[in-house]
Amino acid sequence: MKSERIILGIDPGTQVMGYGLIVDKGKKIELITLDVFKFSNKEDQALRLKKIFESVLKVIDEYHPDELAIEAPFFGKNVQSMLKLGRAQGVAMAAGLYREIPIFEYSPRKIKQSITGNGNASKEQVAGMLGNLLKMGDVPQLMDATDAVAVAVCHYFQRVPDSAGKSYTGWKSFLDQNPGRMAKK
Amino acid sequence: MKSERIILGIDPGTQVMGYGLIVDKGKKIELITLDVFKFSNKEDQALRLKKIFESVLKVIDEYHPDELAIEAPFFGKNVQSMLKLGRAQGVAMAAGLYREIPIFEYSPRKIKQSITGNGNASKEQVAGMLGNLLKMGDVPQLMDATDAVAVAVCHYFQRVPDSAGKSYTGWKSFLDQNPGRMAKK
Repeated sequence: MKSERIILGIDPGTQVMGYGLIVDKGKKIELITLDVFKFSNKEDQALRLKKIFESVLKVIDEYHPDELAIEAPFFGKNVQSMLKLGRAQGVAMAAGLYREIPIFEYSPRKIKQSITGNGNASKEQVAGMLGNLLKMGDVPQLMDATDAVAVAVCHYFQRVPDSAGKSYTGWKSFLDQNPGRMAKK
Repeated sequence: MKSERIILGIDPGTQVMGYGLIVDKGKKIELITLDVFKFSNKEDQALRLKKIFESVLKVIDEYHPDELAIEAPFFGKNVQSMLKLGRAQGVAMAAGLYREIPIFEYSPRKIKQSITGNGNASKEQVAGMLGNLLKMGDVPQLMDATDAVAVAVCHYFQRVPDSAGKSYTGWKSFLDQNPGRMAKK
């Protein structure tokens, strides 16, 4: 395993797709970038799917992430919206599959749990924790991008390299094992 | 528009994906090939999606279809199964999007209606009509592939070239306008 790995987090939606890139430097992580792609309501679904696919591919080819983490809700209001969401997810995943990047999925609850220690945390609480952890500052205007960063960080917490000799299961245990990190808040 | 166009029909599923290729020669169509890809229940979903994507890409690169027609059910039993189906559809569509092939979707009902004149026709009735139309003979062991051929033929019926001066809305009107074709049954 190389000493650093880049994790691409994606929060795919049918109207907005957020993405965030972090670099895992072993015992610490740093934010590379985050942004959103927006799709017009007026565009037909096929065109939106094409844009999602091309957008993810573009990010991959620019940043060469080693792993892709995706926020994947498993429940929704109705079958129609879930089909659309599934398509958006499938297209985003296909871009990763095409570049042979391993994909990992996390439920919204798991992401919140990993980052704040509370599976029912608010978006603001998650954003606050990320702000501290990654020195992101406030990015309220890019909440979808923050969600994407959150899934990337969640993935980092699940899979800290074995060479580090620790297996973090979340921000809480990370803090427990690295009490000094709190000082950076 | 070139004089012949190749239509790739796909019936994407999470366990079996059927595909069929027909060539539209203006006033007649011919079957090029049909087959299924099967995915093991034991494989995880990400691996299956990867296989769907690669399989569709392989078919596209081998046969260079001009258009892609996909069977797209819009209703299902539950949100979970629709998410999975949406992902399978999305991945298959991404392969087409990546090769810049126009994609057209048809509901199962629309496909049955176009081919048999009855939106509630049985699979056997659809297969029977296709058998006559394409001289396919019996292919009971490849029902998923037959479904894929059906969506390709449905697409042909919607979009017979303007140069032909006719707009077919289905097998029935096709027969009405081409009574001689019945003799070939």
